[in-house]
Amino acid sequence: MNARDTQALTRAAGATLTEQLAAQYGERIRHRLLAPGARLPSVRECARRHGVSPHTVVAAYDHLLAQGLVEARRQRGFFVREAARSPVAAEIPAQKVPGVTGHRVAPVDATALIRGMFHGVSDLPAPGLGTLPPDWLDLPLLASALRRVLAHGDAALALQYGQPAGDMRLREALAVKLADFGVRARAAQIVTSTGATHALDIVSRALLTPGDAVLVDEPGWAVEYARLTQLGMRLLPVPRGADGPDLDVMATLAREHRPRMYVTVSVLHNPTGNSLGLGHAHQVLKLAEAHDFRIVEDDTYAHLAPAHLPRLAALDGLQRTLYVSGFSKILTPSWRVGYVAAPPELVERLIDVKLLSTLTTPAVLEQAVAHCLEQGSLRRHAERVTTRLDGARHRSVQLAQAHGCRFVTPPQGLFGWVDTGVDTEPLAQALLDRGWLLAPGHLFHATRRPSTLMRINFATSQDARFWRALDEAR
Amino acid sequence: MNARDTQALTRAAGATLTEQLAAQYGERIRHRLLAPGARLPSVRECARRHGVSPHTVVAAYDHLLAQGLVEARRQRGFFVREAARSPVAAEIPAQKVPGVTGHRVAPVDATALIRGMFHGVSDLPAPGLGTLPPDWLDLPLLASALRRVLAHGDAALALQYGQPAGDMRLREALAVKLADFGVRARAAQIVTSTGATHALDIVSRALLTPGDAVLVDEPGWAVEYARLTQLGMRLLPVPRGADGPDLDVMATLAREHRPRMYVTVSVLHNPTGNSLGLGHAHQVLKLAEAHDFRIVEDDTYAHLAPAHLPRLAALDGLQRTLYVSGFSKILTPSWRVGYVAAPPELVERLIDVKLLSTLTTPAVLEQAVAHCLEQGSLRRHAERVTTRLDGARHRSVQLAQAHGCRFVTPPQGLFGWVDTGVDTEPLAQALLDRGWLLAPGHLFHATRRPSTLMRINFATSQDARFWRALDEAR
Repeated sequence: MNARDTQALTRAAGATLTEQLAAQYGERIRHRLLAPGARLPSVRECARRHGVSPHTVVAAYDHLLAQGLVEARRQRGFFVREAARSPVAAEIPAQKVPGVTGHRVAPVDATALIRGMFHGVSDLPAPGLGTLPPDWLDLPLLASALRRVLAHGDAALALQYGQPAGDMRLREALAVKLADFGVRARAAQIVTSTGATHALDIVSRALLTPGDAVLVDEPGWAVEYARLTQLGMRLLPVPRGADGPDLDVMATLAREHRPRMYVTVSVLHNPTGNSLGLGHAHQVLKLAEAHDFRIVEDDTYAHLAPAHLPRLAALDGLQRTLYVSGFSKILTPSWRVGYVAAPPELVERLIDVKLLSTLTTPAVLEQAVAHCLEQGSLRRHAERVTTRLDGARHRSVQLAQAHGCRFVTPPQGLFGWVDTGVDTEPLAQALLDRGWLLAPGHLFHATRRPSTLMRINFATSQDARFWRALDEAR
Repeated sequence: MNARDTQALTRAAGATLTEQLAAQYGERIRHRLLAPGARLPSVRECARRHGVSPHTVVAAYDHLLAQGLVEARRQRGFFVREAARSPVAAEIPAQKVPGVTGHRVAPVDATALIRGMFHGVSDLPAPGLGTLPPDWLDLPLLASALRRVLAHGDAALALQYGQPAGDMRLREALAVKLADFGVRARAAQIVTSTGATHALDIVSRALLTPGDAVLVDEPGWAVEYARLTQLGMRLLPVPRGADGPDLDVMATLAREHRPRMYVTVSVLHNPTGNSLGLGHAHQVLKLAEAHDFRIVEDDTYAHLAPAHLPRLAALDGLQRTLYVSGFSKILTPSWRVGYVAAPPELVERLIDVKLLSTLTTPAVLEQAVAHCLEQGSLRRHAERVTTRLDGARHRSVQLAQAHGCRFVTPPQGLFGWVDTGVDTEPLAQALLDRGWLLAPGHLFHATRRPSTLMRINFATSQDARFWRALDEAR
């Protein structure tokens, strides 16, 4: 492996070599590829590696110093500052779950990954991305929806006050839309949020107390692990199979740890792409009833899947299940419009926590999303996206297989769960140096351990150069 | 006192009597004026009181039943459901602070108040409101800023991905603006949020651990008490005087309880309208240094005050102080654009917590606010608002004094802190029945106790009918 190659410094136009070098190291520190406490290369070594003068390196390191990213230790060199560490890693003691050995969470890398997603590490496609690539979004559709809201009579309303539960027009449109998925919710059961992540945060804060045990899928979405851990919860990972969670493990954990909640992505699960089977869904609900835990169903990928796939919230009739979703994976991740549909008796609690965390949410964006729902433009856009995704998936799978990668689950939806045959943590570092963002497998495990797997985004893995770079790096 | 009169049922057009009656009781339950467990009037009594038939009452109660707001107990009548209780009151044990007796927080009423703010209890002006009334906002200004962002080349950016720290254009405009207040912050020190409330939430979650002691001003903003309590912190109230916090009490509490943080509104403090004196600011910073606690300065009312008033963050140079603000009190509360400016070494931690709570924030709204800052339209709007507020304050003060109310602090800024001579908790109930939203004094105390004070919003207290209604009710 030839991991330490760096991006060519001349690529970014309009910036001095010093600025480029500082930016490159700054990025690496922010992505936690240089860990807190790690030593930067010596000035001489760095100059050699990047083909620049020592003066340029000194100036670049000074730049990092001024940004508070590194510190100078006398006669020892430059080190990544401890303070650049994540609060999650730095302040919350590692959670030990009785009966689950070696249980540690790796949230630093999770936030690093999402930073990468939103930041863009280079101009290349990002196979590690969790969202649709920018050129798949329908920006004219979004702009026109927003303009329509501003032009319409509701403009005054949209710019003034939000309702605590969220914009009524959106909640009514959502109640109609949810029926497509078999989920019957009245508008009064829906609370909007700053994206689905915020909805998950509101739910945890409203219904859990620090120290509570929470069942989670493993593999699963690292940001959810990190969020629950940051709130002081104990994670109980349940292996996720082709049809859903391992029911025997779930039953044992439920008996031994009395969890308060199970958080799961039923449809097009991240990272495996699997969806919950109907029989499995029924068994999960029976377990939830027997052991009296609630279910939080994160249906973030709803619009990329056939509507008929079973949702827990549909089977359960929103009795014991809370249903969370949003529009980041279909309309745009930037608007941050999400929501939770909940049993009626929980709605007031959720609104209270929403008020304490952000007061209300921006009504103008919620009305624009409502417009897209009402006019059918979201549905038509979703149809175009899924067709395009089918093609991208086909090409990505062929390329992956041609380069010796194996799909551990059948390719479906947005994500592929791929075995590369080598440890993907150093592989991700090596590829980032070449400008490719990769999502290494260890991020999707609640238990920190090496993994040869990676998650790819089918929309951004169709470029043969990525697979060649992968070959070169491993 | 004639508290139980109700709003006339015919006022709301286009709704049946049943719907109006159900809405009125629903509102009262949501505002916690009917507490969980409270019994609704008997059908006959309710029919008599509202001048409707018993059938109408039964149908209205059925409506409330379907909404999950009340429950029927056999042969006993209808009761407000326990589940409608706030999570704060219901789930978090009351915090006992050693050495502070009778220390209880009343968050239910706090969220009730903000619900009232956003909901609008009637068509009348709302003296209890915490924000500018809708007709004081410049909606064309907001709409035009948003249209400009959509039309401009940045539109694609604004609709795609947010940066983790927030939109760069806004952060650069804020760095310039903050210099007006003497606060020197680089754009890299600024993290945007879903309103100032979210910024305060991010700061608490990033820097505190449940059980930590936090100094707060008393009187102060109830939502901040509720938020900190919900996160498991111990509140240490410090009496707020004309020039700032009581320094002796602060020193004693700091010595005895080792607080990690002091959260304060320095300028145009809510509810007293007082601003921190320069000498006081210096002493507060010395105490913070001596006892090693951080300061979170909430400058929500920045745009309504003269720029020269001293900020802790200006004296301190953002070393030990985090500066939080937003645009809810000047542009619109609906857009939820806020931010925190922090010491460089804390920025990464804050971004991590932001990502775990909401991922990013809507770039399109942040760019629209940046546009208002860059073009000077925010400054001109703020000048118009403060001039108008001066007039409103003058009229409100005259009316208040004519009706036997006394200002306990000199009237300044948006809020007046007024002694009515009677307990304002039942007074608030009586006035709400007449359609007037009032902010009773007990909401502004961390220690739950009766209060004869109330907070008025000068912009919404110029209506003589309000003061007459107050006279009638006490």
